[in-house]
Amino acid sequence: MGRALGRRPHGADRPRQVHRAAGAVRPGPADRPGDAVTSAATVAAVPGRGHWVRGVVQDVAPPGVDDLAPGYLDPALLPVELLADAAVRALATYGPAALSYGENQGALRLRALLAERAADEPSPAGPEHVMLTAGTSQALHLIATTLARPGDVVLLDEASYDLAQRLFTDCGLLLRRLASDEGGTSVTALDEAARAVRAEGRRVAFLYATPTFHNPTGRTFSRTRREELLSVAARHGVLVVEDDAYAELLLDPGEPVPSMAGIAGHRGVLRLRTFAKTLAPGLRLGWLSGEPGLVGRLAAHGLVQSGGALNHTMSMVVTRLLEDGDYDRHLPVLRAGLRERRTALLKGLASQGACGWTATPSRGGFFLWLECAPGLPEEELLAKAFASRMRIAPGSRFGHAGPTAVRLSYAFNPPGLLERAGRRLAAHLHDPARHQEGRGSC
Amino acid sequence: MGRALGRRPHGADRPRQVHRAAGAVRPGPADRPGDAVTSAATVAAVPGRGHWVRGVVQDVAPPGVDDLAPGYLDPALLPVELLADAAVRALATYGPAALSYGENQGALRLRALLAERAADEPSPAGPEHVMLTAGTSQALHLIATTLARPGDVVLLDEASYDLAQRLFTDCGLLLRRLASDEGGTSVTALDEAARAVRAEGRRVAFLYATPTFHNPTGRTFSRTRREELLSVAARHGVLVVEDDAYAELLLDPGEPVPSMAGIAGHRGVLRLRTFAKTLAPGLRLGWLSGEPGLVGRLAAHGLVQSGGALNHTMSMVVTRLLEDGDYDRHLPVLRAGLRERRTALLKGLASQGACGWTATPSRGGFFLWLECAPGLPEEELLAKAFASRMRIAPGSRFGHAGPTAVRLSYAFNPPGLLERAGRRLAAHLHDPARHQEGRGSC
Repeated sequence: MGRALGRRPHGADRPRQVHRAAGAVRPGPADRPGDAVTSAATVAAVPGRGHWVRGVVQDVAPPGVDDLAPGYLDPALLPVELLADAAVRALATYGPAALSYGENQGALRLRALLAERAADEPSPAGPEHVMLTAGTSQALHLIATTLARPGDVVLLDEASYDLAQRLFTDCGLLLRRLASDEGGTSVTALDEAARAVRAEGRRVAFLYATPTFHNPTGRTFSRTRREELLSVAARHGVLVVEDDAYAELLLDPGEPVPSMAGIAGHRGVLRLRTFAKTLAPGLRLGWLSGEPGLVGRLAAHGLVQSGGALNHTMSMVVTRLLEDGDYDRHLPVLRAGLRERRTALLKGLASQGACGWTATPSRGGFFLWLECAPGLPEEELLAKAFASRMRIAPGSRFGHAGPTAVRLSYAFNPPGLLERAGRRLAAHLHDPARHQEGRGSC
Repeated sequence: MGRALGRRPHGADRPRQVHRAAGAVRPGPADRPGDAVTSAATVAAVPGRGHWVRGVVQDVAPPGVDDLAPGYLDPALLPVELLADAAVRALATYGPAALSYGENQGALRLRALLAERAADEPSPAGPEHVMLTAGTSQALHLIATTLARPGDVVLLDEASYDLAQRLFTDCGLLLRRLASDEGGTSVTALDEAARAVRAEGRRVAFLYATPTFHNPTGRTFSRTRREELLSVAARHGVLVVEDDAYAELLLDPGEPVPSMAGIAGHRGVLRLRTFAKTLAPGLRLGWLSGEPGLVGRLAAHGLVQSGGALNHTMSMVVTRLLEDGDYDRHLPVLRAGLRERRTALLKGLASQGACGWTATPSRGGFFLWLECAPGLPEEELLAKAFASRMRIAPGSRFGHAGPTAVRLSYAFNPPGLLERAGRRLAAHLHDPARHQEGRGSC
């Protein structure tokens, strides 16, 4: 029966070859007419992007619209063949153990490998500090529903990842926005907010911090700023949830700034990592690290007791990528692809003499944060972008309330498109008659 | 660069062959010495079960102990090769679209295929009724944290799936146990509990119901009982969460009883399904169905908005299994394997003349529920089982408070072991000196 269960499908002597992604992505073959996953879908495919259509993926801009909004990887940067190979190798190596309920905190070997990746941090970590997650969103949901209760207050930057805000409020948590400066979250604002929440008889759920390649502003907080924030958080007994999704995507020369978790020796910090930005978001795989007691508390939740490791089979696939060195060979290729795209977007934007905007220097990640010259209302910029068939993410989406700013993703599109889109946007931003002074004056 | 990203690992011209599972499971080859996933683990392998060890899977009995407790599939029943093939085909077919953030509610084609599988239910369903989940535990967690608030009361059977209870209480919900009879949940008990909760100024979160192959009692509620329960729930405005994990594992001849969701036309019922019991739990993939408005509310949660479909890549792998007919060819093989195991366990138990116990007739699923003759304390039975190197799940684990009862899983072990374990257990249950009357008297 084992043989029958494990049989190959009729007519297939061996797994079909996975198409190599070579520059442009070629759609895979459908097995028979009418077989496409989208046969029931309203198809709005981007030419050359195959099954990348509504009904399959999360969000697709209308045809002909250049989408600089989403924090997605370009389909051409998603390692299709690498993952197909790893899946086959993982199932060959681990057999049914890769298909079982996984150890609650995640397979020990993978946790050890992930802990080793933080070996250059100020504080060493062991597998006991690590728990596998089904991605950062799932980790945030577990934390928000386990370590906080409805009515508690999340402290976060004035401009923060919009969908994390949505997630927190959907868990019944309240939001308290903290002022920021060029260096990151204001230490004074954190201190005052923590006092104010307590004075109101509420409890702080946690500080939601993205100190590295901040989403949306791209900022990286200095080590000193991190230490100051940690000190204030510790004084108030406030847990820090450090969303470090882009940690491995340093694009510029130089050393990374240590994580808040590493600086704090894990005390009072839960650091969230993910493979969504370095391999593929569909895997729904990430990990968190923290003090073993706190991590153990999360791993003891009935959700995990009942279902086991939060995404076990996929975690065993990724174990192969780490064990075999594929992941470490993949990262520099990915970084090169992102660097090329960032350069292309900046080149397009500079086509009008970099007039009418200032980009926050971002050392890595997916985003440019453009602060526009005074006098350009956000609605006007969005209307112009819309009219020129372009989608951008306005600052207001993230809670930004100052002069008009937009987040531009250079991760999702090929370089040529990014340069062209940058040129169009530059034309919208460039208005010498209006921008006589201030930032990005012409 | 696409080529470089998608490259094959060094020295591998094509994916290695996945070992065919042929009766006993052979461990896959490690790629090089010291490479095993468990190199950092405290290994306690079951002979012949390869990587099925602590540090990889959720729970492993000590060597030499026969484990009749867990609701796991036998490693030999996990379709290793089928899933490796499907992973390769899914990535070949869908390419990067299988690796993206998936459509929030789940890929439309898979939702349509899953809806079609309920075509024989009294109420038709469309893809708009379906949402993909990361398994039943994750679905319960989302429901418990979205449609209820801490302090609300879950109504459930006196004996219910233990880890769902843990999950609910970890979400701050209270439990109210309902009496049952041979036919299932008492309708009167449901009515009275709903009134009592309201009278106490609390809110009912939902009725947690497992009317088909109930865990742990194995009972299947009649259509009439389901209708009565639905009627009372509707009168009180109580949502029914129907955990239907074993729906496709009818092992006896005859027709399945329609689901509560199907009887109710989805109104007021969320039905939870999973591939954990029919393919593999490590996939962490399931689906729920309900009224489109309610399903849409779950799919609109920030968790889903942020991360997309709850397990997208794996859902595209399983899409291939459904599209290509593999899943429908796999199910009868799996059912035959479970039938063979159930028969073996019952044969062993009957070795003492079926003396000292009564098994609730279970038409399918994973479990036998043994009610012991009066006078045998649970602790005594557990001590005897422990001494004879056997693990069983005592009724008290599930909240059962009547005469001693145990849940025996026939899903996790090969038939020979089950028969031998059944014989040992029968000897513990058989005690003519004590069991002079009542159930299972000798």
